[in-house]
Amino acid sequence: VAVTRWVDGLTSAGVAAGIKPSGDLDLGLLVADRPITWAGAFTRNAAAAECVRWNRAHLGHRARALVVNSGNANACTGSAGRHTVEATAAAAAEQIGCGADEVLVCSTGPIGVPLDARLIESAVPAAANSLTDSVDDFSRSLLTTDTFPKVSTASSSGASVTGVAKGAAMIAPNMATMLAFLGTDANVPADALQPAVDWAVDRSFNRLCLDGCESTNDSVVVFATGAGPALEQEDLRAMLLDVCSQLALKMARDAEGSTKLVRIRIEGARTEAHAAELGRAVARSDLWRAAAHGADPNWGRVLSAMGSVDRRLDVERTSVAIGDEVLFAKGEPSGLLAAAAAAMSGDEFTVLVVLDQGDAAAEILTADLSEEYVTLNAEVTT
Amino acid sequence: VAVTRWVDGLTSAGVAAGIKPSGDLDLGLLVADRPITWAGAFTRNAAAAECVRWNRAHLGHRARALVVNSGNANACTGSAGRHTVEATAAAAAEQIGCGADEVLVCSTGPIGVPLDARLIESAVPAAANSLTDSVDDFSRSLLTTDTFPKVSTASSSGASVTGVAKGAAMIAPNMATMLAFLGTDANVPADALQPAVDWAVDRSFNRLCLDGCESTNDSVVVFATGAGPALEQEDLRAMLLDVCSQLALKMARDAEGSTKLVRIRIEGARTEAHAAELGRAVARSDLWRAAAHGADPNWGRVLSAMGSVDRRLDVERTSVAIGDEVLFAKGEPSGLLAAAAAAMSGDEFTVLVVLDQGDAAAEILTADLSEEYVTLNAEVTT
Repeated sequence: VAVTRWVDGLTSAGVAAGIKPSGDLDLGLLVADRPITWAGAFTRNAAAAECVRWNRAHLGHRARALVVNSGNANACTGSAGRHTVEATAAAAAEQIGCGADEVLVCSTGPIGVPLDARLIESAVPAAANSLTDSVDDFSRSLLTTDTFPKVSTASSSGASVTGVAKGAAMIAPNMATMLAFLGTDANVPADALQPAVDWAVDRSFNRLCLDGCESTNDSVVVFATGAGPALEQEDLRAMLLDVCSQLALKMARDAEGSTKLVRIRIEGARTEAHAAELGRAVARSDLWRAAAHGADPNWGRVLSAMGSVDRRLDVERTSVAIGDEVLFAKGEPSGLLAAAAAAMSGDEFTVLVVLDQGDAAAEILTADLSEEYVTLNAEVTT
Repeated sequence: VAVTRWVDGLTSAGVAAGIKPSGDLDLGLLVADRPITWAGAFTRNAAAAECVRWNRAHLGHRARALVVNSGNANACTGSAGRHTVEATAAAAAEQIGCGADEVLVCSTGPIGVPLDARLIESAVPAAANSLTDSVDDFSRSLLTTDTFPKVSTASSSGASVTGVAKGAAMIAPNMATMLAFLGTDANVPADALQPAVDWAVDRSFNRLCLDGCESTNDSVVVFATGAGPALEQEDLRAMLLDVCSQLALKMARDAEGSTKLVRIRIEGARTEAHAAELGRAVARSDLWRAAAHGADPNWGRVLSAMGSVDRRLDVERTSVAIGDEVLFAKGEPSGLLAAAAAAMSGDEFTVLVVLDQGDAAAEILTADLSEEYVTLNAEVTT
């Protein structure tokens, strides 16, 4: 198996800090060999974790490192939670030899559980002593209910990018309990990196909609070392989108308790944003997602979900296909349900909605809603 | 067992028309002995069923009867569906001796399945020949996945109201695959009835949020015979709200696959509408509803759900209690999780959120998300 590596100038480690009762890796450290440009996209949840607030406050400044823990979201943890973030940054800064304000902090796990800063302070030195250019341990240290690490790479005109992510549940518009960390050697001015990241996140992670819940902790952080070639804005965006889309697809395939990937593609929309909104409405529908689980070609639930968010939807001009079978053609039922059911029985299928309103399109990735999702999320975690 | 009766001047019947494969009652007929005032509240779904469009077009005119079928929503069924609505109204009109435009039509069941008008035309005469002042057969003819008929009554200053309803799933803001039919003898001018119904529906059925899916068919219809005393607007509203709230509570207790009733009470809000919006956000959260199923006092999911819809939510001023246990007090975790878990282990519990923003409050009724909900809705229905 080929090892995936960070671009030159970045190293990482993953260690077990004792935050997860299982003893698995739960603390990751990503380090740049000098202060670098970074950009980030964070949850818009008003109950955002303390670490999200910390990172947002440091946007626009250079960074040296990022500490991430799994097994505890450190969200809604009050003043003790704020202290833990500060102590985490200070511990990493001491090891690396930088200012605490050059250290970003991310967390994922249960909300509202106190996170003992001493666990992190004790583990940071071991992480700092095991830094390597492989993403391996770091990518595993992020995982919660994920079943596999998520790593992707891309390159463009001599520059490259490596990304690692965790997903699993609570992935909704504006991300959600998803973390993604990208490192690129592209030489990008700070004021060009942030809009490129926002653009790519909007078209990748924000087109994932699993259980419709938006997390307190979701974060995408991109480190740009600047050691490589300069890229045109267009090439930079395409390269970031490539990696983010690959990671989003892996998250969808690993959705909590799910058994299949479902693509909701909306075509013929007035705008891309409108297409995405309608796709998300379908992806958010528990009724539709349960039907997807049972391979029931219940296209009426697709129309109903869209009609509940777009009061002006004209069903007389709308068509719905599942797989290759058109089941509703501009206001009239059509096609063979058995053919659609067959298309739904595999581990991946597409719902195509054509609106006949314009030329814009968007695709939302989702997954089926299974009994196992409920079982997983009914377990006592706090 | 006491039989619940309609007010004088209203009769009903329920028969088996062969729409449900089970052979159960699936066609209801409600008849007024002369043209009467009525009001209605209907789904705002853009994919609303043909019968909803028919009823809306007749708002403001007098009515003589209402035909309701279960086992088929007749939604997204195109021109054939429109024909079935017209044929249904015509069949009832012929039996009763009125105009087809004095007959309202409601349907509930799977979406997108053709509904054969001949089944209804054949069964309407039998229904018209078995009219009685008992609500019994009529209340059973509405049911789909409900486990019991829902009937309630109230009275005020010599006037009374009887209501029957079906619920079970897809109950969301603006109702949803719920039907409720009320009959009152209150003497109400037509222009006073509609606002009273809107007011009562907004504070009862629209405060139910089960799976967050808004249906194509939800309808509340109130028949007012005018044979009883005139009521003050305030008394009329209170009487309607009483019956609608009782019916909504029964729907919540009978939510598809659920094992417990959950009250989400938001206090200290700026406005009642804002309190209701936050309560619905919690009720819509699959993560929270799965935790409720497992009696996991995961109050962080409550905050996270609210924070995802209200970007200005100030967690530092917000408190969350489950049962009598305060688990989050103005920004800081507190209390005993075990006490909250015990409160959640019964068949009903309350989550109380206090915002410290104002004096308004609202309570949303919901239920837990169970594996059985998924199983029920993954079955092939089309």
